[in-house]
Amino acid sequence: MGYFRPNIEAMAGYQPGFQPRQPGYIKLNTNENPYPPSPRVLKALREACGDGLRKYPDPMAERLRRQAAHVFGTVPERILCGNGSDDLLNIAMRCFCSERDAAAFLYPTYGLYETLAVMQGARPVVVQYPEDYALPAELASTGARLTLVSNPNAPSGTFVAPAELARLAEGLDGVLLIDEAYVDFAEANCLDLVPRHENVIVTRTLSKSHSLAGLRVGFAVAQEPLIEGMTKVKDSYNLDALAIAGGAAAIADTEWLRQNVEKVKATRTRLTAALEQMGFRCWPSQANFVLARVPAGQDAAQIYERLFERKMLVRYFPAPRLEDCLRIGIGTDEEMDALVAALAQIIGP
Amino acid sequence: MGYFRPNIEAMAGYQPGFQPRQPGYIKLNTNENPYPPSPRVLKALREACGDGLRKYPDPMAERLRRQAAHVFGTVPERILCGNGSDDLLNIAMRCFCSERDAAAFLYPTYGLYETLAVMQGARPVVVQYPEDYALPAELASTGARLTLVSNPNAPSGTFVAPAELARLAEGLDGVLLIDEAYVDFAEANCLDLVPRHENVIVTRTLSKSHSLAGLRVGFAVAQEPLIEGMTKVKDSYNLDALAIAGGAAAIADTEWLRQNVEKVKATRTRLTAALEQMGFRCWPSQANFVLARVPAGQDAAQIYERLFERKMLVRYFPAPRLEDCLRIGIGTDEEMDALVAALAQIIGP
Repeated sequence: MGYFRPNIEAMAGYQPGFQPRQPGYIKLNTNENPYPPSPRVLKALREACGDGLRKYPDPMAERLRRQAAHVFGTVPERILCGNGSDDLLNIAMRCFCSERDAAAFLYPTYGLYETLAVMQGARPVVVQYPEDYALPAELASTGARLTLVSNPNAPSGTFVAPAELARLAEGLDGVLLIDEAYVDFAEANCLDLVPRHENVIVTRTLSKSHSLAGLRVGFAVAQEPLIEGMTKVKDSYNLDALAIAGGAAAIADTEWLRQNVEKVKATRTRLTAALEQMGFRCWPSQANFVLARVPAGQDAAQIYERLFERKMLVRYFPAPRLEDCLRIGIGTDEEMDALVAALAQIIGP
Repeated sequence: MGYFRPNIEAMAGYQPGFQPRQPGYIKLNTNENPYPPSPRVLKALREACGDGLRKYPDPMAERLRRQAAHVFGTVPERILCGNGSDDLLNIAMRCFCSERDAAAFLYPTYGLYETLAVMQGARPVVVQYPEDYALPAELASTGARLTLVSNPNAPSGTFVAPAELARLAEGLDGVLLIDEAYVDFAEANCLDLVPRHENVIVTRTLSKSHSLAGLRVGFAVAQEPLIEGMTKVKDSYNLDALAIAGGAAAIADTEWLRQNVEKVKATRTRLTAALEQMGFRCWPSQANFVLARVPAGQDAAQIYERLFERKMLVRYFPAPRLEDCLRIGIGTDEEMDALVAALAQIIGP
């Protein structure tokens, strides 16, 4: 061919988790919420399904932006809405990293960071997490234009204290993006870093805690100069009119969020206890999934396959440090009971 | 600051057409369709507004892709769905142009091409259209990795015969992207070039002819190797579940499209005649807008302002070769009558 840039030609592309086209699966592989979105979201969406769709949406999604600012305790000028938070990660990479500039992130973490860096022609600098997923001090000295940290981290579910990320932000010359996709399931968050650090971007999504993976709504929160520059790089109309309407209703319904999050956290505690009783070792999770190392003598890939045969989807990563683990999304208590029963059958007494 | 790449720091960002937040405007500035989307679209959308939104959408939007392939007379493997066709233009720039590579396009044309090139750090090569907007032969010899042609062209509305673009494709070493955002209002199209040219990408959108600017649905049509490479660069879930459902219903309703297009074309003929009678000079349009040079002695910027005061929005570009022109979107016959009456008042007898 020869038409593509060499970095695009050589790369594999990010592989999203398997999406079955048939019904009947217990789906615990992409960290979706097992509970439905707020009824207010569905009402707002149905109302927005009208002739107004013939017109372009608001380029800055002001209605959604204002609602998000209100809930996040900031001003609209410090918010940029995205077509999911992946859109905002992508925009950040394109804003801050020229070709051959360093983009730093940890390992194991969300695989998209590396894909985005390679796609941009940037130079990925990978710093290893220690076994307990504490924040490594070396991350402050990579010289990267952009450093990405998922907190809680995927796929470990572990959480780094905001004070440690504040120290990291102070030590960096470039931008620190803190990806808080899972933070509603955690005990703290980094929004408070934004007013104090001109180089911090916090990203959020409605995909997990607000049960809206299908709607594609995310946010970047940062000081005005960062938001203004990122705005230049976003697509003119990156959110459609329905995502704006539904997203605004979702983020406003904080009580629905609270109830769902409480249920997921209670189930997480229950699942973790059941897994550990069977000999799995779970990292302490503050997300809506658990990373579990399979019991000694067991084969994680094989357990994954056996679960798949039973139409139970979990995530298996054939990658260093993860080959003996499964990442299991938190479903309903009934789904977790079915999973635990299946695991007991598979690994035997 | 110093956080941004120099090209991003220096650029202005693409300015989408003004979107009034108040009702009551006759909106002829962003080439929206004056007629509503198909009732089948609204029905499909309302049905998709359910609990299924908690799950991620299909990454390849297969349902929409298959339907588009059927209507375009090709196979799904030759289609990539986008979050509007802007998303696909963006993906193409990132696939084919490394920093300092040339990206070529004509002038005057859709301003986003230059924005995307600058954003990527590519080198924009601008070839001037002649006064009649015929395709300039020099476009074949720029050495660009990516050449973008809007056909029909915005903002002129003029159309280049597919055979000329086929010749251009043969003369190029790089990729030719033919942006057919307005082609449903034209008398021919370039889909037939795809099977015969491995370096051609044709893009389409549902924003104009299908009255769905608010939903963000576009398509790239190209041979499999180009589609596969572009797939690596797209966001994992670039279309939300509602855009997939509504888009599939829209593209399937070819009869609704045909009726709307016929109405728009009839109104275009009527508007052009009325404008020329008033002394405007219109380029022959095959799009859903008309580029009109204001009568001698008149000031286009001033006419724009006078129309704005009357809550009539047209597009004025304060840019070379366009300062004496207005781009007027085709609305309903009633809207056009109101516009023509206002213009008669403004420019006087």
